[in-house]
Amino acid sequence: MEKFSTGREVRAAIRAGFRGPTAAFAPEYVQANLVAVPAEYAAEFRSLCARNPVACPLLDESAPGATGTALASEADLRRDLGGYRLWRDGRLAAQSAGAREFWRDDLVAFLIGCSFTFEYALTRAGLPPRHVVLGLNVPMYRTNVMLAPAGRLHGHLVVSMRPYPADDVERVAAITRPYVEAHGEPFWSGEPGRLGIHNLATPDEGDAVPFEPGEVPVFWACGVTPQAVAIESRLPYVVTHEPGHMFVTDRLHSERPVA
Amino acid sequence: MEKFSTGREVRAAIRAGFRGPTAAFAPEYVQANLVAVPAEYAAEFRSLCARNPVACPLLDESAPGATGTALASEADLRRDLGGYRLWRDGRLAAQSAGAREFWRDDLVAFLIGCSFTFEYALTRAGLPPRHVVLGLNVPMYRTNVMLAPAGRLHGHLVVSMRPYPADDVERVAAITRPYVEAHGEPFWSGEPGRLGIHNLATPDEGDAVPFEPGEVPVFWACGVTPQAVAIESRLPYVVTHEPGHMFVTDRLHSERPVA
Repeated sequence: MEKFSTGREVRAAIRAGFRGPTAAFAPEYVQANLVAVPAEYAAEFRSLCARNPVACPLLDESAPGATGTALASEADLRRDLGGYRLWRDGRLAAQSAGAREFWRDDLVAFLIGCSFTFEYALTRAGLPPRHVVLGLNVPMYRTNVMLAPAGRLHGHLVVSMRPYPADDVERVAAITRPYVEAHGEPFWSGEPGRLGIHNLATPDEGDAVPFEPGEVPVFWACGVTPQAVAIESRLPYVVTHEPGHMFVTDRLHSERPVA
Repeated sequence: MEKFSTGREVRAAIRAGFRGPTAAFAPEYVQANLVAVPAEYAAEFRSLCARNPVACPLLDESAPGATGTALASEADLRRDLGGYRLWRDGRLAAQSAGAREFWRDDLVAFLIGCSFTFEYALTRAGLPPRHVVLGLNVPMYRTNVMLAPAGRLHGHLVVSMRPYPADDVERVAAITRPYVEAHGEPFWSGEPGRLGIHNLATPDEGDAVPFEPGEVPVFWACGVTPQAVAIESRLPYVVTHEPGHMFVTDRLHSERPVA
């Protein structure tokens, strides 16, 4: 499962043409969601993160027009992720392997923590996520949980889901809880209807995964949440990653704050 | 409306027997919600605040058994608020003017920001809250908005409500937004059903307030939220303030961080 051992190797492979979700890649390294908004929305986006730190744990913010980040040397946020999306007026306007053609001098890039960051800890504990075992993208679902709005930005929480035996949920929660910059402990486990999710077989993003008998769905807040915000707030122009196709940083988990 | 000019004066009046909501008291001073939990729940409560900073902006945490706070000199959290509640196993077990008989050596007291803190700014801008004008307690409502849980602690958001003309909502939001330690900008305005509130005339806490033609309800996250958490999580033992009967600190707004 572990195809690359460092963020630098993952980014080099992507520059060389690799495409696909990055779960279990460079497993000791922090992975991140990308959201780039016009500078006139940057303060509101920063506030959205501060007000919703479980969904949007902010790892880094670039200067307007900058394409690098303090989280990785020699990185270019326009080409170091395996997939990009352009959102215009709340609608998906384009998908591309690179974002060079989408980038504007007024874009401010935000990097937000990702639950892939804690998957290695689950795997080491003998609790590998199903999508990792099966080589699928993690399933993600929009929910009915309202975010705390920030100015013109509002929307609902997006969650990722991993099935686990009901008896393991407490242990799974304890393992992911310390990863405060990667959504931390589960947001909910059990009945999906409580989050307004009606059919686990049809995720809004990523791939459906099969359940074994006795397993329950365990949901974590997801860094795709800002894409729901882009849609619901009808933002004029936003560049994001393709869900599951993360920016893999040079930072080891061990360097980042934990609870 | 302004009955006292400092937190010290309010606390002295309460020690002398004053009872009642503290809206518009000592208007330049920060007001706070009280939640005291057994020490074995303190880490989880601290995490609940960190994960839900809009509902639970943490101002101060005491040492186990301590009854003072860094936010006010010579304060005694067991008698400096105008009303207390004791919760046992998620049920309201007692209400009292003092908490001396409820306090235990293992209690850790948390002080959480309160929206009364920004009401003076609204009043100075010619937008006094209706409950202040009428001398009522602010109306508060439980919602269907799930909090991010923290260990054994989970629950739903509680909001306070103030009616404003639809045309003033943006200005009201701009005024309260900088008060990041007092819930900041509104959580929602307009249709109460979007928060799962079915009848504004029957608040869960505080007093109903009348609407004028053209006004809409404006909702802010509320520091009574931990009382909903105490209920929903069936916490064995929690001491809180009586909603609206706040701890008035020695801190001026101008000393506290803003956005």
